[in-house]
Amino acid sequence: MAWTDTVPDVALSSLPPPDQDRLWRQLMELAEFRELDQPGWTRRLFSEPYQRSRAWTRDLMEAAGLEVQADAVGNLLGRLAGVSSDVPELVIGSHTDTVAGGGRFDGMVGVVAAVEVARLLGQTGRRLRHSLLVVDFLGEEPNRFGISCVGSAAVVGQLGEELLRLTDEKGDTLAAALAGIGASPGGLSEMVWPTQRLHGYLELHIEQGARLEREGIRLGVVTSIAGIHRGVITLVGRPDHAGTAAMDDRRDALAAAAEVVLLVERLARESRLGGDGVGTVGRLEIAPGAANVVPGMAIVWVEFRSAESKWLDDRHRALEAGVRDCAARRRLEVEIEWISEGSPVACAPGPRRAIVEAIEELGQAHLELPSGASHDAALLAQICPIGMIFIPSREGRSHCPEEWTDPEDVALGAEALLGAVLRLDLADSL
Amino acid sequence: MAWTDTVPDVALSSLPPPDQDRLWRQLMELAEFRELDQPGWTRRLFSEPYQRSRAWTRDLMEAAGLEVQADAVGNLLGRLAGVSSDVPELVIGSHTDTVAGGGRFDGMVGVVAAVEVARLLGQTGRRLRHSLLVVDFLGEEPNRFGISCVGSAAVVGQLGEELLRLTDEKGDTLAAALAGIGASPGGLSEMVWPTQRLHGYLELHIEQGARLEREGIRLGVVTSIAGIHRGVITLVGRPDHAGTAAMDDRRDALAAAAEVVLLVERLARESRLGGDGVGTVGRLEIAPGAANVVPGMAIVWVEFRSAESKWLDDRHRALEAGVRDCAARRRLEVEIEWISEGSPVACAPGPRRAIVEAIEELGQAHLELPSGASHDAALLAQICPIGMIFIPSREGRSHCPEEWTDPEDVALGAEALLGAVLRLDLADSL
Repeated sequence: MAWTDTVPDVALSSLPPPDQDRLWRQLMELAEFRELDQPGWTRRLFSEPYQRSRAWTRDLMEAAGLEVQADAVGNLLGRLAGVSSDVPELVIGSHTDTVAGGGRFDGMVGVVAAVEVARLLGQTGRRLRHSLLVVDFLGEEPNRFGISCVGSAAVVGQLGEELLRLTDEKGDTLAAALAGIGASPGGLSEMVWPTQRLHGYLELHIEQGARLEREGIRLGVVTSIAGIHRGVITLVGRPDHAGTAAMDDRRDALAAAAEVVLLVERLARESRLGGDGVGTVGRLEIAPGAANVVPGMAIVWVEFRSAESKWLDDRHRALEAGVRDCAARRRLEVEIEWISEGSPVACAPGPRRAIVEAIEELGQAHLELPSGASHDAALLAQICPIGMIFIPSREGRSHCPEEWTDPEDVALGAEALLGAVLRLDLADSL
Repeated sequence: MAWTDTVPDVALSSLPPPDQDRLWRQLMELAEFRELDQPGWTRRLFSEPYQRSRAWTRDLMEAAGLEVQADAVGNLLGRLAGVSSDVPELVIGSHTDTVAGGGRFDGMVGVVAAVEVARLLGQTGRRLRHSLLVVDFLGEEPNRFGISCVGSAAVVGQLGEELLRLTDEKGDTLAAALAGIGASPGGLSEMVWPTQRLHGYLELHIEQGARLEREGIRLGVVTSIAGIHRGVITLVGRPDHAGTAAMDDRRDALAAAAEVVLLVERLARESRLGGDGVGTVGRLEIAPGAANVVPGMAIVWVEFRSAESKWLDDRHRALEAGVRDCAARRRLEVEIEWISEGSPVACAPGPRRAIVEAIEELGQAHLELPSGASHDAALLAQICPIGMIFIPSREGRSHCPEEWTDPEDVALGAEALLGAVLRLDLADSL
């Protein structure tokens, strides 16, 4: 990071703190846009409540003094003009969609806090050198087309033709679904954000894990975002009558899948392979799925996540070997398709330092930690330096209705975000 | 079995053999009544093709000279009057519905062969002492209300109010579904067959296993029908974000379910517990079922089958202990519901002896073997002596489109059924 030669004092004392009540009211209002036939606080990409909520978010941005527009894919962008029009922009934000049965904080906290930061700067007349761009990225959570981070993938040039042609269960394409909510997928090729126009990206987010809570620390500085290797394993045996097929004659696809589930768990726990990460089978489907028929097919969705590439690569290889061995032993056919092999993404030194300094100014302790969840920031890292701030999740719960962060922590996170923005604004480049 | 004092010679030589071509043509015709949106040869209870097929079966019975009626639940009954009207009836038959993705022989062979036996007796003027009742039992295979053997359960008085109130996924009751296909469930209480009116029940069926084929023997004499213990195990842990929940913090319901699947397999294979039987997990459902969420709930459908009560009881107990141990170790809540604990059913000595003698007269070898699959006969055993004849299934396959029995074996099975009927007719009681 090339700071201007003398870093002026950027004490927050000259600015009012973020308004805790307003932030909380906004979060609760946003949560009410939800799919009533789903449990929890559900607002998925392409749902009618999500559509309505984004008109609300647009109003929120405008009321905060931002100049708002939607880009070709449907990201909402609110701009606060800086002093210089010829310097790159500083971007802050997150997303406002949820998983099915999700909560009220994952994503939303980062958007309302970013708007609050822009509002405070605008209201107090504190002009930044860089223009500030507040973003609500379209559809960060996994959607029915099997991908996630639609909006942030588009701005880094990763939402190519191949992804736009993905189909849902009804055979409709992602491109058609995007067009249906007012996006112009035809214009996607021109919407990639040019690196030279970007100063950096900051995202405030809930931790979704329990480390901050356990340590009794209210603010986290993210060191890296976990890489994810996701695979789909298809095991094909033979359906047989559950009463007449002898145990030794069976080619039971579910029994093999059960071995895979336990292998994933064991590999993730195994210390012999070193390092730290997690492994999950979150989805498993079998056919024909009748109580009195030996399952002839099983499909197992596997993922490993780690901040360390070697950890991921080791598990990836060990799982492949174990699955092939299991299939051979049980006389099954097997196909392993790795649908993503994302590497860990490091948070940049400049934003990390700015976040740490902002937290210290607030008189707070901080914890440096990797993010096990992925975020829009992981994609933005391809085109600019990124930084992330975490606030605590009660009991580490997330992607569930019980997801919770205290109002005081939301406000404190927003204040840390404001401080980091002020610091990064002083740097010529990161 | 109290035979009449002197058993006359009941040589088949005076009767023409069953017509192999006619039997095969009927099986293939019947198979064409199928649900076109389902794989294989699918004709499930309540489906429109099943409805149409039963008009065909009724015509088949009438063309064979039987006096046909449908009872209150919808069983098709074709009667061939015997010499005496004051002796109990001899019943033969099976069912004509299939599982989803099923084949062309399971059940159907027993019905067309029973009609052929009646046709031959009628055409040749060979009057039996007992009236012969040919039955196509309604819906033997598992249906969307979670039960099987609807028609045979009704005639033994087991289709009570509780079962009639069972609902499908849409909330419709079994009683309503039965009324929808012309049954009169209100009359069920009066339709129970009185024991004193029954001489015995014989069923010809495909083996659905591979023992006959392996031994190179074309006819099997069933010794008993396996008992089935079926349980539903519900494991409740906690859904967590697959990226942020540490391995040690998880309460993964699918990992526990995987242990249960492998435990069922191990218990069924274990020789230490002695005896012979099979164990299967054919159905497994998890929630929420997203690739990036640790499964918070799993439901596991388990069954054990054996011809030995002790084998079943031992596995039942060992599984319960193992599941509770696993749930405790993984900090899950668990509920085990045994939905059926059917004991093995023995085939009666009289019918078994009659079948063996009929096979010997045909100059064929026979194999005595238990049935791993359940059948309408297992219910009939509650009200009269039963016997079953098996014919080979190629590679033991069943409940799949590949299900196959050679035309010659179908005809031979029908001939053995005819011989056994002639023999049982001579007995005053079984």
